[in-house]
Amino acid sequence: MVKVGIVGGTGYTGAELLRLIAGHPDAEVAMITSRAEDGVAVDELFPSLRGVCDLRFSVPDVAALSSCDVVFFATPHNVAMKLVPELLAAGTRVIDLSADFRIRDAALWSKWYNEEHLCPELLDEAVYGLPETNAEAIKSARLIACPGCYPTAVELGFLPLLEQKLVDSQRLIASAASGVSGAGRQAKVDNLFAEMDGSFKAYGVSGHRHLPEIEQELSIAANEAVNLTFTPHLLPQVRGIHATLFSEQLDPNVGLDELQFLFEKRYADAPFVDVMPLGSLPQTRTVRGGNTCRIALHRPQNRNTVVVLSVIDNLVKGASGQAIQCMNLMFGLPETAGLGSISLLP
Amino acid sequence: MVKVGIVGGTGYTGAELLRLIAGHPDAEVAMITSRAEDGVAVDELFPSLRGVCDLRFSVPDVAALSSCDVVFFATPHNVAMKLVPELLAAGTRVIDLSADFRIRDAALWSKWYNEEHLCPELLDEAVYGLPETNAEAIKSARLIACPGCYPTAVELGFLPLLEQKLVDSQRLIASAASGVSGAGRQAKVDNLFAEMDGSFKAYGVSGHRHLPEIEQELSIAANEAVNLTFTPHLLPQVRGIHATLFSEQLDPNVGLDELQFLFEKRYADAPFVDVMPLGSLPQTRTVRGGNTCRIALHRPQNRNTVVVLSVIDNLVKGASGQAIQCMNLMFGLPETAGLGSISLLP
Amino acid sequence: MVKVGIVGGTGYTGAELLRLIAGHPDAEVAMITSRAEDGVAVDELFPSLRGVCDLRFSVPDVAALSSCDVVFFATPHNVAMKLVPELLAAGTRVIDLSADFRIRDAALWSKWYNEEHLCPELLDEAVYGLPETNAEAIKSARLIACPGCYPTAVELGFLPLLEQKLVDSQRLIASAASGVSGAGRQAKVDNLFAEMDGSFKAYGVSGHRHLPEIEQELSIAANEAVNLTFTPHLLPQVRGIHATLFSEQLDPNVGLDELQFLFEKRYADAPFVDVMPLGSLPQTRTVRGGNTCRIALHRPQNRNTVVVLSVIDNLVKGASGQAIQCMNLMFGLPETAGLGSISLLP
Amino acid sequence: MVKVGIVGGTGYTGAELLRLIAGHPDAEVAMITSRAEDGVAVDELFPSLRGVCDLRFSVPDVAALSSCDVVFFATPHNVAMKLVPELLAAGTRVIDLSADFRIRDAALWSKWYNEEHLCPELLDEAVYGLPETNAEAIKSARLIACPGCYPTAVELGFLPLLEQKLVDSQRLIASAASGVSGAGRQAKVDNLFAEMDGSFKAYGVSGHRHLPEIEQELSIAANEAVNLTFTPHLLPQVRGIHATLFSEQLDPNVGLDELQFLFEKRYADAPFVDVMPLGSLPQTRTVRGGNTCRIALHRPQNRNTVVVLSVIDNLVKGASGQAIQCMNLMFGLPETAGLGSISLLP
Repeated sequence: MVKVGIVGGTGYTGAELLRLIAGHPDAEVAMITSRAEDGVAVDELFPSLRGVCDLRFSVPDVAALSSCDVVFFATPHNVAMKLVPELLAAGTRVIDLSADFRIRDAALWSKWYNEEHLCPELLDEAVYGLPETNAEAIKSARLIACPGCYPTAVELGFLPLLEQKLVDSQRLIASAASGVSGAGRQAKVDNLFAEMDGSFKAYGVSGHRHLPEIEQELSIAANEAVNLTFTPHLLPQVRGIHATLFSEQLDPNVGLDELQFLFEKRYADAPFVDVMPLGSLPQTRTVRGGNTCRIALHRPQNRNTVVVLSVIDNLVKGASGQAIQCMNLMFGLPETAGLGSISLLP
Repeated sequence: MVKVGIVGGTGYTGAELLRLIAGHPDAEVAMITSRAEDGVAVDELFPSLRGVCDLRFSVPDVAALSSCDVVFFATPHNVAMKLVPELLAAGTRVIDLSADFRIRDAALWSKWYNEEHLCPELLDEAVYGLPETNAEAIKSARLIACPGCYPTAVELGFLPLLEQKLVDSQRLIASAASGVSGAGRQAKVDNLFAEMDGSFKAYGVSGHRHLPEIEQELSIAANEAVNLTFTPHLLPQVRGIHATLFSEQLDPNVGLDELQFLFEKRYADAPFVDVMPLGSLPQTRTVRGGNTCRIALHRPQNRNTVVVLSVIDNLVKGASGQAIQCMNLMFGLPETAGLGSISLLP
Repeated sequence: MVKVGIVGGTGYTGAELLRLIAGHPDAEVAMITSRAEDGVAVDELFPSLRGVCDLRFSVPDVAALSSCDVVFFATPHNVAMKLVPELLAAGTRVIDLSADFRIRDAALWSKWYNEEHLCPELLDEAVYGLPETNAEAIKSARLIACPGCYPTAVELGFLPLLEQKLVDSQRLIASAASGVSGAGRQAKVDNLFAEMDGSFKAYGVSGHRHLPEIEQELSIAANEAVNLTFTPHLLPQVRGIHATLFSEQLDPNVGLDELQFLFEKRYADAPFVDVMPLGSLPQTRTVRGGNTCRIALHRPQNRNTVVVLSVIDNLVKGASGQAIQCMNLMFGLPETAGLGSISLLP
Repeated sequence: MVKVGIVGGTGYTGAELLRLIAGHPDAEVAMITSRAEDGVAVDELFPSLRGVCDLRFSVPDVAALSSCDVVFFATPHNVAMKLVPELLAAGTRVIDLSADFRIRDAALWSKWYNEEHLCPELLDEAVYGLPETNAEAIKSARLIACPGCYPTAVELGFLPLLEQKLVDSQRLIASAASGVSGAGRQAKVDNLFAEMDGSFKAYGVSGHRHLPEIEQELSIAANEAVNLTFTPHLLPQVRGIHATLFSEQLDPNVGLDELQFLFEKRYADAPFVDVMPLGSLPQTRTVRGGNTCRIALHRPQNRNTVVVLSVIDNLVKGASGQAIQCMNLMFGLPETAGLGSISLLP
């Protein structure tokens, strides 16, 4: 039984970790922290966990946390990097769901997050937690930097094309949309039901923090610096990311069926990537609550632009599910353990 | 392994049976029928089941169905009663999610459903599938009439009060609201997103088919004919029933804490009824996808009216989950088998 | 041209006053205040007003406000009562959309609002701004206390029955539901989209501040103290209140068509009350953005309980529209001036 | 008073014409047709029009229709082209909201609509009803082909860039999303609330009927054949189109402020195009119910890709509002007559 600690348990990724680990055959949550809710029963904040979780929130304490086999950080950025060095020193492995260790270049991180990085020496060691590219490194990692939600959907959609140098790496476009749970459980007027319902908008168009992360990972895949235009949008729904990816084929003679074959082969061993039949139109609800990424390929009018559609649940494959997938690899468990829940439809 | 057949698999309760049985340790779906979709892969209609279910719909055939241990009818009313006699004769047990066998009085059934009942001789044998009242009879039943969704929420909320004769049985009021999945997966203008979103209405105010069913069951509990005003409403959401139940206390000296104690005792052994602490306000999302009914008691201003709040997921405890709970009892399985999924929150 | 000042312009009722007065032929907004947004352009906060409103928010100043013909308070409770005495002294008329002057009994007000009333001497003078009962008093009033949103829907539905003593005034039940805009434009976790979407709940069951207001007004109509059980619910939609009202007929021989006739007669001269044909099921969307209250009558199973359905837009007839209707009466304008916008459907 | 006839009044664009003309000072609806609802009162189908519209639907009759000054077709494609020749012959002007006369090339039309065009001889005469480009031709037109909803949003966003040859016309990308009212008031399972709520998907990715229309109009603006990748998506909301437009600048030295200036100048005289300040993020709700198109410009990271955001209400500027704007021009009325309603917010 893997003994899990969770730092920052009052947000949506924390609640999702609780839900998923409650159904995990080989892991259990030993402690969950929150300064604000210290002493409060978890199921008072999240009544959906009544009868399932009898923990109470406690103030984060490194000594106590280090008694766990692994600690998940389900915090905003800038929290994990304060506690991780001590936990690693105590021999506890760490899976960070925040942005603190995603970007390998400390200066680039500082530019986008407007503060200095507190432990740049760990950036090299941190493993980017996308099992579809880094499974081996994840298995032995002490510190996992879980990918962002948009990056997961965008990278899984572009990777096969860039790895095979089939598209123009300088003209990548990602038009993506997310449900609002990605913005977290924070009291903001902009995220009120009365502000969001029945409306749609782009945001972060001039620059979103997931851009450098995506470009970093796609550049590794392409083996050259890529150029991406990334436009996120906010959907009037709770869960789900849909990425619509545009790229130009370098060789117009490569057929769409060849691309389809390539994707199927690339993800043949990936239990959570579903390459749908040609012509499919993935809906975000088909992955709601599940850890699957569904991908479909199109080439409109048989012209030169490849359109890849990629959907995930931002809180599962885009956060807590992927974190547990990493944990499974780290502790030698089946990669799919605890991640079998089927999406509600309708 | 219980071998299951499903008649009418293209609707929401059929899809929900597939989802739940896919996660059931001791049951498996052997066949699923649909005349309209004969030959179509189930996961084409419900992409959320890709990788989970590889069945195809087939035309209903009694001979084939009777090779199953149990057949679920996830059909509109008026289908089950045509096939059930043959299936029972062949030794197959039947769990009917439709209304065909819920009302014991054939004449009353005919009045509300505007047609004659085809096998009134089975009405006496049919067991009303509410495990919280009929567990013993369910265990040995050949034919289960699963309660309607509203009836489940309303009955569980009123039962303890009526069984103990604590409230005026002639002045019961149930103001209830349901998500639209209760109306099924049928193409109707009224249920279009553009017709329903951002709006709320009552319906069936002058008479709803669930009224005679609820009055029948509450009368059994009260041991006298009760009088209920039942007003259903349609919510702009997919899943969830919320019943707000009003009744007048007969003895004003009985305290609210006594009522709370009574409810807790009544449902102490019911794994799927959660009597919440006094003052709670159950939200439908806390039971979404789960088989739990959450109940909370109030007595506004300490006056004489008891208000019971009761929430369920109409497709789970209100239909397919309850049906599986009955199956578990019928086949000697743990009552909670396959019903452990935790609600998504958010 | 009536010169209007608005105190508290950053909330939803303030925005709604701006929208409605922008289309009013005989009134214009001269100033709108907000301490927090002092100096900010109104259309920056509310882009829907771009090209329509070129005001900026300013700090509230009694001297400046008293240059207006009328000042609307679109504030939380406890603000108006601080400024109203001075404004009245300066000869400015006041329409208060908050709760400060709705309850005639200062002690009762204090009990429900947990603070002392600052100008109890004005409670007698304040006119309850429901034009369907108080039109004459409104015309000459210096100070209007606009009804709450739930009270408007509930009172208009019960008034004819109580005025004619047709139902048992001791057994009134109102099960009502509101869109979340009624909770205002405040950053609260509970009102986030991710917390509300796809879910429904009751709230304030044990006691809601609109209860004493409704009982006060219904008691005036009934000419005796009434007893109401009032249960509000929160809908996953932005606008709209739906009240489902239950009462027991005193004389079972009075037919439903007589009740219908009574309602039609009672509201024959009320331009904003639409008594729909018998059997109608009013939807909240049919009054969205409009000042109309639509009412329909039912008597389920021809038993003894009358069910009245009443819908309004909480921000229009339940707040800003009703306030403008009062203003029209106060300044001798046509009662419907500026209130003609038709609901969007879909 | 312009006397208006509406063919096909039971859909959403028909209802929207009724709503808008009800508030129009210089036009009135004389008749509205529907074969299916012949004899039914309009306000029975659309209760939001109670007290506003007392017409009944009638069977379409060319003789009767030709007594109108102008006839609007709010029908699916393939209806208008059957009746238009006769109406024009009778001297009645026609505004067609369907697709029948949008594409100038009859062969191209047939390819996308899978049938022959019945009056190709009128294609040359038909004026494309986008007042921002064709105001003069609209004034004297006998037959208007109103633009599609997506085309309106996409064209208004791309036009200034293409007219000035500032971007690569061979690499245009439009990722757009629409509320479901664009799919009409037809009973389809895919458009049920239970199928759409909380989910998002692309559709028509391999080829959507609006593509040839948009390419036709953009090619006219660019004075050369353009190449567009157009990907529509379906939003879980009723109204609103959001177009996210990507194009590559030909001269990287042209600054974003110059582009902004260009857009402001291009639309200086267009009463319904709002070029928002640089950096704005238009929300669809800010145009809900109104005829405005709001546009904002971005150039992420100051790289070479221009991102234009463009929002409209698909039923107003994308259909019925634009049709009335055309009518105003045709009959010498103020261009904005009857189109002044302000969006509800929230």
